[in-house]
Amino acid sequence: MLDFRPILFITGVLMLPLAVAMCLPAIADVAANNPDWQVFLIAAGFTLFVGGTLALTSRSNIRAITPRQGFVLTTTLWIVIPGFAALPFAFADMDLSYTDAFFESMSGLTTTGSTVIRSLDIAPPGILIWRSLLQWLGGIGVIAMAIAILPLLRIGGMQLFRMESSDRSEKVLPRTTQLVAYIGFIYLGASGICALAYWLAGMSGFDAVAHAMTTIATGGFSTYDASLAHFESATIEYIGLVFMLVGSMPFVLYLRALRGNARPLLRDDQVRLFLLVVIIAILSIAYYRYSNGVEIEVALRESAFNVVSVITGTGYATADYGTWGAFALIGFFFLMFVGGCAGSTTCGIKVFRFQVLYATAVTQIRRLLEPHGVYLAYYNRKPIPEEVSASVMAFFFLYALSYAVIAIGLGLIGVDFLTAVSGAATAISNVGPGLGPTIGPSGTFATLPDEAKWLLSAGMLLGRLELFTVIVLLMPSFWRD
Amino acid sequence: MLDFRPILFITGVLMLPLAVAMCLPAIADVAANNPDWQVFLIAAGFTLFVGGTLALTSRSNIRAITPRQGFVLTTTLWIVIPGFAALPFAFADMDLSYTDAFFESMSGLTTTGSTVIRSLDIAPPGILIWRSLLQWLGGIGVIAMAIAILPLLRIGGMQLFRMESSDRSEKVLPRTTQLVAYIGFIYLGASGICALAYWLAGMSGFDAVAHAMTTIATGGFSTYDASLAHFESATIEYIGLVFMLVGSMPFVLYLRALRGNARPLLRDDQVRLFLLVVIIAILSIAYYRYSNGVEIEVALRESAFNVVSVITGTGYATADYGTWGAFALIGFFFLMFVGGCAGSTTCGIKVFRFQVLYATAVTQIRRLLEPHGVYLAYYNRKPIPEEVSASVMAFFFLYALSYAVIAIGLGLIGVDFLTAVSGAATAISNVGPGLGPTIGPSGTFATLPDEAKWLLSAGMLLGRLELFTVIVLLMPSFWRD
Repeated sequence: MLDFRPILFITGVLMLPLAVAMCLPAIADVAANNPDWQVFLIAAGFTLFVGGTLALTSRSNIRAITPRQGFVLTTTLWIVIPGFAALPFAFADMDLSYTDAFFESMSGLTTTGSTVIRSLDIAPPGILIWRSLLQWLGGIGVIAMAIAILPLLRIGGMQLFRMESSDRSEKVLPRTTQLVAYIGFIYLGASGICALAYWLAGMSGFDAVAHAMTTIATGGFSTYDASLAHFESATIEYIGLVFMLVGSMPFVLYLRALRGNARPLLRDDQVRLFLLVVIIAILSIAYYRYSNGVEIEVALRESAFNVVSVITGTGYATADYGTWGAFALIGFFFLMFVGGCAGSTTCGIKVFRFQVLYATAVTQIRRLLEPHGVYLAYYNRKPIPEEVSASVMAFFFLYALSYAVIAIGLGLIGVDFLTAVSGAATAISNVGPGLGPTIGPSGTFATLPDEAKWLLSAGMLLGRLELFTVIVLLMPSFWRD
Repeated sequence: MLDFRPILFITGVLMLPLAVAMCLPAIADVAANNPDWQVFLIAAGFTLFVGGTLALTSRSNIRAITPRQGFVLTTTLWIVIPGFAALPFAFADMDLSYTDAFFESMSGLTTTGSTVIRSLDIAPPGILIWRSLLQWLGGIGVIAMAIAILPLLRIGGMQLFRMESSDRSEKVLPRTTQLVAYIGFIYLGASGICALAYWLAGMSGFDAVAHAMTTIATGGFSTYDASLAHFESATIEYIGLVFMLVGSMPFVLYLRALRGNARPLLRDDQVRLFLLVVIIAILSIAYYRYSNGVEIEVALRESAFNVVSVITGTGYATADYGTWGAFALIGFFFLMFVGGCAGSTTCGIKVFRFQVLYATAVTQIRRLLEPHGVYLAYYNRKPIPEEVSASVMAFFFLYALSYAVIAIGLGLIGVDFLTAVSGAATAISNVGPGLGPTIGPSGTFATLPDEAKWLLSAGMLLGRLELFTVIVLLMPSFWRD
């Protein structure tokens, strides 16, 4: 039998900072003279009580956690924390059911950015900052998970990013903790610079902080229904663009660069391909719009911002790209799946997996010609272990399969074709908006049936935890002895 | 340097039966007093001349063909033969450009079934029988290729179906030839029984033969714009359903069953899963329509026929399933990719590949828990060699990639979203109709721009030759000594 006590213990312990975090929006509401501050304090109190009880009643040794417990813990955390983080949305006077609240909270913490709130423009400041904070916390949570947990659990080829130290002795935990702490500082610093830049470009202090948190996290929640288009400022768009890109590259490489070695960042395979794909997508969509009569500056700027927003899975919009014509619509549809680099805040299949898949496929094709030749696939100038190839290929298949199951499920619930195929994509890749009039950049998820909201929440969870972490729990053999 | 002479020789030789085949529609036109018979004779004469010249000028030893020449030959054949088979369409008084003619011919020979002909009801009998004949010849060509060529070239896991004998000595060629001949008889016999059944159910002799040829080949060309719905006969629909299923199972197993051993057919993994998927899809779509107020008998019959038609890639229609609601639309979209069994006339990813992918993904997930455990994936009660897993996974990735490239290309050409995403699917999986008002079951491909028709033709070729055969030619290293 699996020992659940360390799992409950850690979950309980991590609910305490969540309760503390709930006090920040309360302060914002008090400052704005909004009665909603009580909502946050009640939610905080309840979270503190449940978390404290859990932690106290299941104290146990967390050093001896097995991989199996690790899988259960990770999934549990990413269900329980959104479940409690949803309380302020449900309690506030916003006409949101608990389904809506959970959807919004899951969308926040997974840095997806899909929303069920119809009128952000009149929402209280506490709720707005809570949404931003969830994405910001989710973002650093995701990076920490990508550095410390997924490589050890060997999820979908993530063992490629195992630190050299992780094979050696018991020093792993302190080293990893230290690394995560350093990267936390970088994350904080980048957020601060981003907020400053937004503020200098003309945002209010509140908006600057709220948007900086969701930009670095590639989350995409805004404080306005019109998203970043509200500000009607090219400068703000370019700032957003730059910091979305910052959020979508491997944070470990920033640390190395800050320590004086920028080479790994500049020569990293996935960083290079990622930037290349971004540039090609921007130029081709801009050219397409230009040839359809749009002014060159507008075509380039709008294409640049929205391509980066979709490929990084941020989900801000400065224009309704649903009206840009067939090529843009189809292009954005496939861009949703791409994602950024491993070890960043982005989701999606991720660029390094495409590189591993492509390199492996090429060796397979070469083997057709020389059945007995030995061909190695390379990533970052190192041969890819067979185990990693197989794991990434299995990941890709399960991604396609999960995508199809979610899309078919949405169809069964009665959602139309474009909403279903793009909604499934936007959920599993944690992008934010889908395509079409309902869930496209100028719509919201509010009108979808409840079942669809739960299914999409499950999709966000699945994508965020890189599939394997969740799917392994569905195998009967996981629960046998 | 690659020696092209055997390639040109075999291509030339195979153009001779094509020229002979063109005389059959000429006979039909003469019998119907239609002047179009001249068109077929001119096309036959030209094909005979070019083929004969090629064969005579490049005579060479075809026993010593290397795998490399095999790849070039297979792709060349599947471009040149459709190129000449298109001539009657282009020469006939049908208002078809050569682009249209090539599209129709490629769609026929690859057993796709997409059409650019707007009014079949008034088309001359020669053209109608030529379309059916192309699909029928394509069907047996595909089976022969799946038995004799793809396993030897080890395309996308097809080495699973290599015959036991094929490892041994020089007896391979005669044995394979014999096997293909036996299976040709089964194909002919099944077509005859199908034609008889259609005739007994009330079709004219001409329609019965024309439809039998495109049913067994899972091709889907009909002699009427309304497809099989024209006959308004439930009996004819059920006959079509049965023989589409006959065409989508491994013909080698029929041979074994006829020799007295039906066990392999009944116990075959892919046959079982294929039938299971078909039944689940039929029942769920029928239930969905029934719960939307459709009569149970109609819901079941229409769902059964159209599900089988789409999953086998036949492409007949008895109803416009585009109007069946979101679930049906999305369901049909994903069914397009599935396909039937290897060694049949169907295309698509094929059921055995999903089984290999699934089994491999499960072993990957089990390895997460027990990194040092040894887990084998099984297919048909035998362990799957690592080489086959890797090849099938590479196939799946390249399928998804090719699909995306074609869909994006269609978008660039200016085709709308639903037409592009379903058109790319229907081409690469050789289904026939797409979804939506333009290319859906009640439309045609006639109005698409020429570039789209060429791109879709390339997609059909790519899908039919199981990707690898074509993609290997695009690798620079293929052409380096």
